[in-house]
Amino acid sequence: MKRLVTKRLVTMILSLSLTTPLAVHAEEAKHMLDASTLDNVRKVAPSLEKYAQGPLTDLWRRPDLAPRDRSIVTLAALIARNQARDLPPELERALDNGVKPREISEIITHLAFYAGWPNARTAAAAAKDVFARRNIGVDQLPAASPPPLPLNEAAEADRVNRVGQQFGATFPGIVQYTTDVLFRDLWLRPDLAPRDRSLVTVSALVAAGQVAQVPYHLGRAMDNGLTQEQAAEAIAHLAFYAGWPNAFSALPVAKDVFEKRPK
Amino acid sequence: MKRLVTKRLVTMILSLSLTTPLAVHAEEAKHMLDASTLDNVRKVAPSLEKYAQGPLTDLWRRPDLAPRDRSIVTLAALIARNQARDLPPELERALDNGVKPREISEIITHLAFYAGWPNARTAAAAAKDVFARRNIGVDQLPAASPPPLPLNEAAEADRVNRVGQQFGATFPGIVQYTTDVLFRDLWLRPDLAPRDRSLVTVSALVAAGQVAQVPYHLGRAMDNGLTQEQAAEAIAHLAFYAGWPNAFSALPVAKDVFEKRPK
Amino acid sequence: MKRLVTKRLVTMILSLSLTTPLAVHAEEAKHMLDASTLDNVRKVAPSLEKYAQGPLTDLWRRPDLAPRDRSIVTLAALIARNQARDLPPELERALDNGVKPREISEIITHLAFYAGWPNARTAAAAAKDVFARRNIGVDQLPAASPPPLPLNEAAEADRVNRVGQQFGATFPGIVQYTTDVLFRDLWLRPDLAPRDRSLVTVSALVAAGQVAQVPYHLGRAMDNGLTQEQAAEAIAHLAFYAGWPNAFSALPVAKDVFEKRPK
Repeated sequence: MKRLVTKRLVTMILSLSLTTPLAVHAEEAKHMLDASTLDNVRKVAPSLEKYAQGPLTDLWRRPDLAPRDRSIVTLAALIARNQARDLPPELERALDNGVKPREISEIITHLAFYAGWPNARTAAAAAKDVFARRNIGVDQLPAASPPPLPLNEAAEADRVNRVGQQFGATFPGIVQYTTDVLFRDLWLRPDLAPRDRSLVTVSALVAAGQVAQVPYHLGRAMDNGLTQEQAAEAIAHLAFYAGWPNAFSALPVAKDVFEKRPK
Repeated sequence: MKRLVTKRLVTMILSLSLTTPLAVHAEEAKHMLDASTLDNVRKVAPSLEKYAQGPLTDLWRRPDLAPRDRSIVTLAALIARNQARDLPPELERALDNGVKPREISEIITHLAFYAGWPNARTAAAAAKDVFARRNIGVDQLPAASPPPLPLNEAAEADRVNRVGQQFGATFPGIVQYTTDVLFRDLWLRPDLAPRDRSLVTVSALVAAGQVAQVPYHLGRAMDNGLTQEQAAEAIAHLAFYAGWPNAFSALPVAKDVFEKRPK
Repeated sequence: MKRLVTKRLVTMILSLSLTTPLAVHAEEAKHMLDASTLDNVRKVAPSLEKYAQGPLTDLWRRPDLAPRDRSIVTLAALIARNQARDLPPELERALDNGVKPREISEIITHLAFYAGWPNARTAAAAAKDVFARRNIGVDQLPAASPPPLPLNEAAEADRVNRVGQQFGATFPGIVQYTTDVLFRDLWLRPDLAPRDRSLVTVSALVAAGQVAQVPYHLGRAMDNGLTQEQAAEAIAHLAFYAGWPNAFSALPVAKDVFEKRPK
């Protein structure tokens, strides 16, 4: 009898908690664990559910990086690591968090170059289904060749000069493509702000363990308006989505970039 | 006529070989090449069958690392590299080799943090099916929040101090998570022995090419009871499952760890 | 009215361009974007189609690396990164570009060791279907144990001595396997020329970001006949298929190899 009462009490508390603040919590947690994943987790590793409802849910609410930025970081990590399985729910969450369809389109195009064409193809397949479910038509997508943003001629001349001196004679092909296709075309596409494009790039580099390319792109990201606090929080976010080792390997490199920037 | 006799002789020899020691060999080789893979291999690269029945089968019998440990190393490599296709047969082999369901559960939870949440989700999906086929119920899984193992306060204080001094001011988020969620929670979960948890971590790092994190974790693994011979043999094992380059890149780093340890 | 005329003019020009040189262009572009990918791209990122028909199509026509070599580089990158989705169309293109079935078979076997067995299994599954569609039977495949190519005894003795001194005492298992299974067996298989085997190895290393192993294997590739210009162009090719960061991380390492070679 006592046990029955306790059971009813528990049920009552649970149903209450589902209609008050915790309901929001549960709503958010759906992004961490969709129905089929939740079933897998309960039948294999119940602790994953605990961590998903604890630190992983809290992570998205931390103030140092907006939910929209967190979605950009997460998409970049998933595409860079070619994790098709997790893309659909994270694309849904990105749209919920205010990332525009045209921005998602540009993130995929950008990562064709920064993570490889096959990764972009995988991402396009996932996005097509999500866009279809939401009735997002081609009118909401960027044009193939829109008028470009203005080029920072001085910074680009400096980059061309530096890379040209180091690699131009030995690797003429990639050096020319880098100028023509990347920095005088891709980076000037207007449907993703340069700051966001940099956030995508740095996130993809950290997620794929490519720390050698972090100094240039993190400096560029900060030139484009990413703050040091946002960069640090993006790395904390990536610890969850690309694993602690990739995040920790980025720490000394990012710290060095922060310290060397003119104050 | 002569040809017919030869054919019969070959058939006889083959059937003999399947009922004597080589039968065991064939039984073991099934883990290397399940039926559908064997068909692929025979129609594409017959040499792969030769190597699977030769060095790859012999590898699992080498005395420096027990079959159970080899299964732990293999699962860690597959999850770290997100190789869903190979997980089911290796999960089956792990259970055959004495890895407990609760240990597999913990390996997956551990790698949510050390290889990224998407990798853990992929692994949970594969494990759910294998567990279902073997009637492994939730009663055989670890609790979400079991009583923790005792903390080595001195070692943890030393780690907190070292990481805090280097990164605490610049990266407060990840540094706090590392203490609260990893070293004061995840690492104290009792259903995977610290030595095995370390073996999972080091294997995942080597398999993913994250050598910068190997020195700390290999030292910790040896503090937790992994011998130098086992560590060396785990790297040899990983050469087959994560490729020779990842194994060779780990050699100078591991050698340095071995040489610097107090005798 | 004027608008209608313009529209008709555009239609006319487009249909003309599809029956003249641009038709060839379109035929080639099918390799970049098969029908289902093209649909994804048009509904998600129209700019990807522009880049596929522009720089990505031009890439394959650049004279510094033959289409056959580009297919070898591309297959190595896809297998090293375990990108099953893109393998079928690239296997088709490789056969169109003159890569023989027996060479594809050997590339897969080679990468079982240089990218890990799970990657080779994924590739074998994809190749089986492509071979079946083209009626490529086992008579076109290499034998499991063909007579080996002659061994360069001096170079191998030098390698054994160097690796043995550095790692033999600490890592006897992997050092022995490296000699017996790789350099005295795999590398001597005759159905893939040593120069092509080296091109596969270097491409896989660059594509997987394993630059620490590039110096030895790039030197070996050039000993086996790969020219500096071909190596440089292979890296430019890999920028598209494995992402710019992997290519750029390889540049200083490759440049150093080039500069240190005896002229």
